[in-house]
Amino acid sequence: MLYEINEKAIQLQNQGKKITKLNIGDPDLATPNEIVEAACKAIKDGRTKYSSGFGEQILRSELGKIHGVPADNIVITPGSKWGIFSTMYLLLKDGGNVVIPTPYWTAYGLIAKTLGVEARLCKTDLASNWQVDLEAFEELIDDDTRMIILNNPCNPTSKVMDQKIVDGIVKIAADRKILILSDEVYSKISFVKTKSILDYDSSNILVTGFSKMFTMTGWRIGYVVANRELITKIGKLNQITFSNVPVFIQDAALKALEIRNKLTSEIRDIYLNRAKMASEILSDAKLEFSNPDAPFYVFPRREGLDSEKFAMNILDKGVAVAPGTAFGDYREHFRISLTAPEVDLKAALFKICEALDE
Amino acid sequence: MLYEINEKAIQLQNQGKKITKLNIGDPDLATPNEIVEAACKAIKDGRTKYSSGFGEQILRSELGKIHGVPADNIVITPGSKWGIFSTMYLLLKDGGNVVIPTPYWTAYGLIAKTLGVEARLCKTDLASNWQVDLEAFEELIDDDTRMIILNNPCNPTSKVMDQKIVDGIVKIAADRKILILSDEVYSKISFVKTKSILDYDSSNILVTGFSKMFTMTGWRIGYVVANRELITKIGKLNQITFSNVPVFIQDAALKALEIRNKLTSEIRDIYLNRAKMASEILSDAKLEFSNPDAPFYVFPRREGLDSEKFAMNILDKGVAVAPGTAFGDYREHFRISLTAPEVDLKAALFKICEALDE
Repeated sequence: MLYEINEKAIQLQNQGKKITKLNIGDPDLATPNEIVEAACKAIKDGRTKYSSGFGEQILRSELGKIHGVPADNIVITPGSKWGIFSTMYLLLKDGGNVVIPTPYWTAYGLIAKTLGVEARLCKTDLASNWQVDLEAFEELIDDDTRMIILNNPCNPTSKVMDQKIVDGIVKIAADRKILILSDEVYSKISFVKTKSILDYDSSNILVTGFSKMFTMTGWRIGYVVANRELITKIGKLNQITFSNVPVFIQDAALKALEIRNKLTSEIRDIYLNRAKMASEILSDAKLEFSNPDAPFYVFPRREGLDSEKFAMNILDKGVAVAPGTAFGDYREHFRISLTAPEVDLKAALFKICEALDE
Repeated sequence: MLYEINEKAIQLQNQGKKITKLNIGDPDLATPNEIVEAACKAIKDGRTKYSSGFGEQILRSELGKIHGVPADNIVITPGSKWGIFSTMYLLLKDGGNVVIPTPYWTAYGLIAKTLGVEARLCKTDLASNWQVDLEAFEELIDDDTRMIILNNPCNPTSKVMDQKIVDGIVKIAADRKILILSDEVYSKISFVKTKSILDYDSSNILVTGFSKMFTMTGWRIGYVVANRELITKIGKLNQITFSNVPVFIQDAALKALEIRNKLTSEIRDIYLNRAKMASEILSDAKLEFSNPDAPFYVFPRREGLDSEKFAMNILDKGVAVAPGTAFGDYREHFRISLTAPEVDLKAALFKICEALDE
């Protein structure tokens, strides 16, 4: 129901209604000016032709330096989502299952469903502070398991996994020769340091993007770091699907990398403040939740809540949130994206708390 | 081998070598300034957020007016190629075959192969002026045929299909309740008027894009016009793959539509002149070919030619062309894209003719 709510929110906006959109992780902040200028310069310089399905060499090299891998182990994608879709398509099209902790980002489940792939879900809950039970996790794995998907920090909970638990999952995967796809789109702006999957074993797959790190959501650019065989397959799939990410967008991304330290620390500070504010308001309203370790989300619970009804209800009042059911079996939860200017965010949070008590 | 040659040409360019790239349909012309300015304005105006997987309502409406259909029957895609991939994926993932005349655009075959779909090819040849034999075509169809792909005007021959033959195929398809996917990316800039598939029966599928019409290749924007059921499926697939075509690119496309009459007639004139020049040079070199009815290609034949060897050979001499084998069973043919400035194009054409006689 995540996309349905979003399409409805867009429709309402098109009708002229004011909607505070806390339903998706799309920051209110503008893309930083340096990135905007780099894109416009590239467009004016004629960087508007077909190019490689693998991405621009200069961008791949720069990312390679950051991750400590050769450029050939990187492919540029239209958002991290395409990295996930294409990897799942390529590794699972001939069958097999994928094991994923929940709550999980809606797209994993929808992609699995579309591809006809069995997704085995390992449920975590607020009571255990959203940590995976390793025994329960391992029980889901069998000989047909082709992939594990981790998302650390996690959307929708904004929790970072305990290091020991990641260690445990990596060990299980290595013992059983199962690839881990690690979606780390929030890691560079996390409030808490996280270890990348690439720090373990280079055979695993890192998927990430520029959207969250640099407020570049609508630009649609991300990348995959993986073994060359998979990178070659994704690059070839790119060639026959969308051809290439527009070069001028890749140029903008290159500029973002240049100024990444400044940008990521600014973004981290902004969301840390918002997370504090949200935590206070939600605590006062007696909602249960864990404090975010990272941008952009809070995933509160109210006992007995039907979050789908609640999400539709609150949308009519001008606030969009995502129902917990979009992230697995979490009807009593809903996800708030802290992606509105502070004043609007505060007003929307109060509206949410009021509506819960109606 | 189309993409291999292209990746190699890009590598050589990256090494500082001058390559006249006549291997892909990527115009040397710059994207018109009005479109460039519209894109930059949109980026600066913050049109850089997530949006609908179906495309911007205003762009869909405008396209709807052009094609005489409601906006809901249109979905915006990252290039026409995604329109083709997604349609083939959605309609053929549960089995069935697709019937396609050849020579055909490489992507159709590669997509079918990737999806594990049987492509039944109806070979046409230069001797019959590239026209489909209706009887042979119908013989390829059986109860498992789910789709017919037409590309009119055709890449790589730049021929327009005889109207009677299109009529015949439409009738066969209608009688057998098989959908036609009509790829019409060259139709609006064709030297010869062509009838759209939508002028026959609204149940058929039109795929087209902005790349060729408006010199917007690297922008990656196209669209599909089809029944609502298919449009809904493609929009939902968009949501879980690349999310949406960047809104600022859609804004640029909207500007392109505004000035389309001026732009398409300019582009048509330029390519008509190039086609005349190429025809003269290739005729003088005793190559066999049909005169192009549309931009951008000539598809000449030389008896006994191994076009794959020839394409690799001529690449070392600074000219990239596409071997005929990229378009089906056409080893003696090769495709020249007339997509270089006149002076370079002329020099490259002479180089090609010389190399053929070596």
